[in-house]
Amino acid sequence: MSKKLWGGRFEKETDDLVEKFTASIEFDKKLYEQDITGSMAHARMLARAGIIPKEEAAQIIKGLLEIKLEIERGEFPFTCELEDIHMHVESRLFEKIGPVAGMLHTARSRNDQVALDLHLYVKEKIAEVVDKIEELMKVLWKLAAENRDAVMPGYTHLQRAQPVTLSRYFKAYYYMLRRDKERFSAAMKGADIMPLGACALAGTTLPIDRQYTRELLGFSRIYENTIDAVSDRDFVIEFISCSAMLMVHLSRMVEEFILWSTSEFDFIELDDAFATGSSIMPQKKNPDVLELIRGKAGRVFGNLMSVLTVMKGLPLAYNRDMQEDKEPLFDTADTVTACLSVLPGLLSTMKIKKENMKKAVEDSFADATYYAEYLVKKGMPFRTAHEVVGKMVSYCIKKNKKLRDLSLPEFKNFSELFEEDALNLSRYPEEVKNKKAL
Amino acid sequence: MSKKLWGGRFEKETDDLVEKFTASIEFDKKLYEQDITGSMAHARMLARAGIIPKEEAAQIIKGLLEIKLEIERGEFPFTCELEDIHMHVESRLFEKIGPVAGMLHTARSRNDQVALDLHLYVKEKIAEVVDKIEELMKVLWKLAAENRDAVMPGYTHLQRAQPVTLSRYFKAYYYMLRRDKERFSAAMKGADIMPLGACALAGTTLPIDRQYTRELLGFSRIYENTIDAVSDRDFVIEFISCSAMLMVHLSRMVEEFILWSTSEFDFIELDDAFATGSSIMPQKKNPDVLELIRGKAGRVFGNLMSVLTVMKGLPLAYNRDMQEDKEPLFDTADTVTACLSVLPGLLSTMKIKKENMKKAVEDSFADATYYAEYLVKKGMPFRTAHEVVGKMVSYCIKKNKKLRDLSLPEFKNFSELFEEDALNLSRYPEEVKNKKAL
Amino acid sequence: MSKKLWGGRFEKETDDLVEKFTASIEFDKKLYEQDITGSMAHARMLARAGIIPKEEAAQIIKGLLEIKLEIERGEFPFTCELEDIHMHVESRLFEKIGPVAGMLHTARSRNDQVALDLHLYVKEKIAEVVDKIEELMKVLWKLAAENRDAVMPGYTHLQRAQPVTLSRYFKAYYYMLRRDKERFSAAMKGADIMPLGACALAGTTLPIDRQYTRELLGFSRIYENTIDAVSDRDFVIEFISCSAMLMVHLSRMVEEFILWSTSEFDFIELDDAFATGSSIMPQKKNPDVLELIRGKAGRVFGNLMSVLTVMKGLPLAYNRDMQEDKEPLFDTADTVTACLSVLPGLLSTMKIKKENMKKAVEDSFADATYYAEYLVKKGMPFRTAHEVVGKMVSYCIKKNKKLRDLSLPEFKNFSELFEEDALNLSRYPEEVKNKKAL
Amino acid sequence: MSKKLWGGRFEKETDDLVEKFTASIEFDKKLYEQDITGSMAHARMLARAGIIPKEEAAQIIKGLLEIKLEIERGEFPFTCELEDIHMHVESRLFEKIGPVAGMLHTARSRNDQVALDLHLYVKEKIAEVVDKIEELMKVLWKLAAENRDAVMPGYTHLQRAQPVTLSRYFKAYYYMLRRDKERFSAAMKGADIMPLGACALAGTTLPIDRQYTRELLGFSRIYENTIDAVSDRDFVIEFISCSAMLMVHLSRMVEEFILWSTSEFDFIELDDAFATGSSIMPQKKNPDVLELIRGKAGRVFGNLMSVLTVMKGLPLAYNRDMQEDKEPLFDTADTVTACLSVLPGLLSTMKIKKENMKKAVEDSFADATYYAEYLVKKGMPFRTAHEVVGKMVSYCIKKNKKLRDLSLPEFKNFSELFEEDALNLSRYPEEVKNKKAL
Repeated sequence: MSKKLWGGRFEKETDDLVEKFTASIEFDKKLYEQDITGSMAHARMLARAGIIPKEEAAQIIKGLLEIKLEIERGEFPFTCELEDIHMHVESRLFEKIGPVAGMLHTARSRNDQVALDLHLYVKEKIAEVVDKIEELMKVLWKLAAENRDAVMPGYTHLQRAQPVTLSRYFKAYYYMLRRDKERFSAAMKGADIMPLGACALAGTTLPIDRQYTRELLGFSRIYENTIDAVSDRDFVIEFISCSAMLMVHLSRMVEEFILWSTSEFDFIELDDAFATGSSIMPQKKNPDVLELIRGKAGRVFGNLMSVLTVMKGLPLAYNRDMQEDKEPLFDTADTVTACLSVLPGLLSTMKIKKENMKKAVEDSFADATYYAEYLVKKGMPFRTAHEVVGKMVSYCIKKNKKLRDLSLPEFKNFSELFEEDALNLSRYPEEVKNKKAL
Repeated sequence: MSKKLWGGRFEKETDDLVEKFTASIEFDKKLYEQDITGSMAHARMLARAGIIPKEEAAQIIKGLLEIKLEIERGEFPFTCELEDIHMHVESRLFEKIGPVAGMLHTARSRNDQVALDLHLYVKEKIAEVVDKIEELMKVLWKLAAENRDAVMPGYTHLQRAQPVTLSRYFKAYYYMLRRDKERFSAAMKGADIMPLGACALAGTTLPIDRQYTRELLGFSRIYENTIDAVSDRDFVIEFISCSAMLMVHLSRMVEEFILWSTSEFDFIELDDAFATGSSIMPQKKNPDVLELIRGKAGRVFGNLMSVLTVMKGLPLAYNRDMQEDKEPLFDTADTVTACLSVLPGLLSTMKIKKENMKKAVEDSFADATYYAEYLVKKGMPFRTAHEVVGKMVSYCIKKNKKLRDLSLPEFKNFSELFEEDALNLSRYPEEVKNKKAL
Repeated sequence: MSKKLWGGRFEKETDDLVEKFTASIEFDKKLYEQDITGSMAHARMLARAGIIPKEEAAQIIKGLLEIKLEIERGEFPFTCELEDIHMHVESRLFEKIGPVAGMLHTARSRNDQVALDLHLYVKEKIAEVVDKIEELMKVLWKLAAENRDAVMPGYTHLQRAQPVTLSRYFKAYYYMLRRDKERFSAAMKGADIMPLGACALAGTTLPIDRQYTRELLGFSRIYENTIDAVSDRDFVIEFISCSAMLMVHLSRMVEEFILWSTSEFDFIELDDAFATGSSIMPQKKNPDVLELIRGKAGRVFGNLMSVLTVMKGLPLAYNRDMQEDKEPLFDTADTVTACLSVLPGLLSTMKIKKENMKKAVEDSFADATYYAEYLVKKGMPFRTAHEVVGKMVSYCIKKNKKLRDLSLPEFKNFSELFEEDALNLSRYPEEVKNKKAL
Repeated sequence: MSKKLWGGRFEKETDDLVEKFTASIEFDKKLYEQDITGSMAHARMLARAGIIPKEEAAQIIKGLLEIKLEIERGEFPFTCELEDIHMHVESRLFEKIGPVAGMLHTARSRNDQVALDLHLYVKEKIAEVVDKIEELMKVLWKLAAENRDAVMPGYTHLQRAQPVTLSRYFKAYYYMLRRDKERFSAAMKGADIMPLGACALAGTTLPIDRQYTRELLGFSRIYENTIDAVSDRDFVIEFISCSAMLMVHLSRMVEEFILWSTSEFDFIELDDAFATGSSIMPQKKNPDVLELIRGKAGRVFGNLMSVLTVMKGLPLAYNRDMQEDKEPLFDTADTVTACLSVLPGLLSTMKIKKENMKKAVEDSFADATYYAEYLVKKGMPFRTAHEVVGKMVSYCIKKNKKLRDLSLPEFKNFSELFEEDALNLSRYPEEVKNKKAL
């Protein structure tokens, strides 16, 4: 319990439970760097615009730098009484330089201040995520390049469908991630706008210079509308939306690798360094990392739902509900960067069992479409060809054969269009690589 | 129960319940136009590439045009037996032109076909939504222009905070919608790629010409990877994500107008044509339209969650789960276009009660910041000024006065820095419009 | 456009777009039976309490019965102008019996009327879902009974972990469904309360007899608070919550069967009547039904999120947002009943390949824990035993052996505690069935 | 990097990133008490069943108690290398008592161990939440009792609808919370089942005594199926579902109070101890606590979506995705207990402005239904009465009158059925309290 910086008209102290309930310091201290960076720029602008004296501004900036160091060194005391990172910094500044500290919050409100911190945070995180996506894309491209000759069954409905190269599989994920990269990059636009100067919601009568602060902080634009500036959280939602999509992709990719590392598929083996064991079953080698990534998709979806619901129906401008945007945002950023960090090593070290993949193709009827298209080339309508080859497959299943095992007379039993060259349709990987529309 | 087009190797007929359970015709018939457009382009390409004879292609195209007319005229019979729109069209084509119909599905699978239909659909819907957003933006801009002199309390925490012009309020929504417009426009990129030619997932050995089909169908690009082409639903999710954000904005705007049309706020009155009555209370005039829009935000969030969850962890390539993308997509498109359609009329006809807004400003302490900034201009640190004015507000509340009612001696009781000009701080709308950072 | 029944004080007609936007008839006509049942009971009560004349009540009831028949026969004209099912029925009643129809809505509002309809609907649907769950449970129990001797690898992390009986696998799902059944049954409590008599939100000054209506309609209780009665949608959310949980279970079960019907697992084969084929690949047999059920889990989660979000933060009592509860509810009920209906046939007809399951056990180290527990029985701490057997597994992998292939001297190389009886640990299904804690 | 307890067959050390990525200790240390309680009971059972020696069991139990104290005193070192709380405790036990520690994990897996911890945790939290709900119910009941004579406008569509007592408003929330209490209590059933003994998923060949452990730990039942025991998270989802519903109710209640504490409604004033101020606007008194509760509804919905999505489609039995159940569970429990804790004080201290409420009734046409029902009592069909009173309201609005201001001749202009007693219909609170169906 303590006198609050905003306590002018209040006659009672804040209830202890309320203090704890409303405090955000436990999570928003994560924004200390952004907050101090923003405050330093703000102080410089105030001095330059003649709103506060230059000397005092210098004192403020010096104090803020010291505080930043204290926090980095873990020497800074955090407490629920001081609510949030903004109040912590300002209070500590007061301890250091006295009432001059009170000049810092001129022409500023926590509303535009926290918006600024979030913008700076999201900008950094977008850059970080884009870097990590690129790194993963490189690994996928390398794997694709290395596996041009590896043939595997392409699946639909998890049933072996048609032969493809493993290269093409990896590239499918490469292209998904390329879209993610573009999407995050596009989201930078909404993050790269400076809200400072909007104050509580209505701007100020003081002669501030927003363009100067904008330049100092490296933003491309400033908000054109002060109410919008403090109540906009689009850039937060957009970051989480992009993350949700990314997690859809990652969850699909890891699902694949979980399946492939089962005894049943046996297409890959994870390196010991990227797998884990069982506390009871000594023989186990578990793809925990992959499972966790799959699970974390749910987490990010939940965060998205959370922030959308928080923002739904909020009247303008700032409402305290908006404090609930931070934890989902931070958690999302931490989650996607962690998932993106662990995957390159895992993919680079996993052992690919090309022989098993090839065997899976050969054991299947994945080549059936080749025979149907063969007949089409001879002039048969596709539907008829589809039916003919369907019957051939039924025949083979009963005879326990594969299509490539059939003799020419057997072929001709199904259609007179089959000739000698039909015996040669299931060559791998040649036929696979010959295909159009790779 | 009937023989299926894919039934070659099947020895039993499909169970009735299964037929009904898996059929999508009830909702995917919505795609008939896209489906037929795509098929006509496909048939032209097949003929041009020499894969099917030109004459047969002409027959197919003629038949498809007739089918399109039949559907438009409501003369086309839909049935669960035929599963989906693709099978309906092909079956009807067979009835019309016989086995030649079987040539249409050459070098194509339902996997790339339905992906194509969805791409075409989303492209159209993005264009439609962007148009409607623009229309609403125009109305907001007009309202902003008309209300430059209207002063109202800007709210934070739904408490009167600082005076703003009504113009600025409307513009805040204008800028939100401008971001929505940009976001939908950016989503066009992911929709504007042609998947046709990917076939089931692996392309084809037939000599197709994807660039020709792309041109016919007006796409900018084709998918570089066939597996990605049939399993990508990013463009669907992105459309719904953009819609969810738009609904956040609309729900905030309508919340505001719901509040403003209460007897308590009494800032606006909806036109009779845009309000509804009560079945039991004759005096009621209810903002049902606004409430429904608010509620429909939940609907779109649900659709987003639905599709994200469907796609999570799906191995490549097509899985039948993906059929579940359609209804949420269609419902989202219908919902946002309906909400966007009804708002311009409602906003244009509602009566704005400027006098009540102004009175709300005058009855409040929304001008308090002016006095604090006044003291700052006289050299007082902001925090001290904030505390001083906080005490002035407490004093006024006890005396049942407003700040502008205070006399100079009263002012000076709180700070010697107050001078004659302090008596003149709460002029509206002049002071509001003078502010920086509008 | 038309004069509304609530239009007394309105001077303009409703805008066409508004009429269409606010109309719910397209989906709430689904409630016609509940609505008419409720109205008939209400009319009887009004007459009995002397609020309307008995003769008029009889006319009303007769008219309502006729309308019900008209709707059942498909002869009833629905139109957006009449907004909802309540107005449709009352308007038609007016056409039939004139102004007397106007007596029906005495001491009633659409707020308590629609709440009643929903309560009746949810009660019916709970009963239906519980029945269908029981049916599925029976099938699972039967499968469990038939497969007591079938041994398969139990999986964790989708890795073969320890041998279990197939029976136990089926029972795991049986018990999940038993909890679903209990959960739905418990949800009946919240549905089985009658809201009628609450009117708009405040009850009525007319001498109604709520207990009599309650009896007529077969409810156990009436709401104790009129405001709560019209604004409570807990029972809707609870039905959807229970459904979401059920879909979690069904999605897990079908995931299993999708895996089991891959060529790689090859544990089951779906009957032709419950599988589907491919439009391009003649050899395919796809588990579409299972995939759709898995996908539909996302749909129900979305519905849950939708209704929760709609209800969040709604002030008392009725708000039009609440109209958005219906479609998610109806869709959820339709979805879960469809999924539950199709599964019994699919499960009963699928072919179980016990030999493949047994082979999967024998090809694995799923019996490793037996050896560790053997050592524990001889006095070795479990952690040490775990480590010893871990090394035995490594040894076997290098030698391409299974644990049961080891000779006694090889066993003794790892621990002197191994004796002759260690050679006999991997007997199936005996050892599996001997285990504790089944 | 370190040798893992499960590392027997592994030849490489775990990658650092993997170690950090998979570690759950940062959040599952919250379960230390449940974990140690479970382990002590397990050790006692093992000794009693003769599986481990009694003396060693005593050593284990003593060691565990010491560890518990170390953790409580903050002296216990946590590190990512040891993954989770289970490994931390066992490793520390090893440091204390050597290889005997290795006996503790006999006939147990982390799969049933973590399930046990969660069951114990959820049981405690249900009890705590139920207590807190009861406390809040008491406050609401007290407020209802104190405000039987306070009349306020009941709202629908946020428009003044009909007069109600404030008492009835509070009771509406009382009954909602009563349902929450019942729902949480019902959820105890699913939490109160003991999973221990299921081991990894298949039980054990060792002669354990599950009933004894059950008794020691105070569970009512044990799981009937071992696979279900380790893969069931229904009780987690159910806790979060109940919490989501509770948050719907709390968010509705606080929305109301946010509205009521606006200057426009002015029905209540929060106590200074339960409100907060502004960093820039000295006059502000903000309902931050209420807004945060409203916002936190989104958070809990997000948690629900998260866990549902995590569990969707997971094959049996344990998969590492399930580690993602803990943070949403813990966060939900913390959130709802915090919200429930802060509300009683806030409600008990807020000032209710009954005069303003009454004035709002008198300023409105909330009494219109009384006049319609008056006409019904005189024999007019309700629809006609509704129309008549609608016209009276229109007349009053034009004349700037209220219904109770009309003279008898004016009444009779609208209907001859009006008599002297119609002049007396709008008495408060008598008329309100006379109503049926309260």
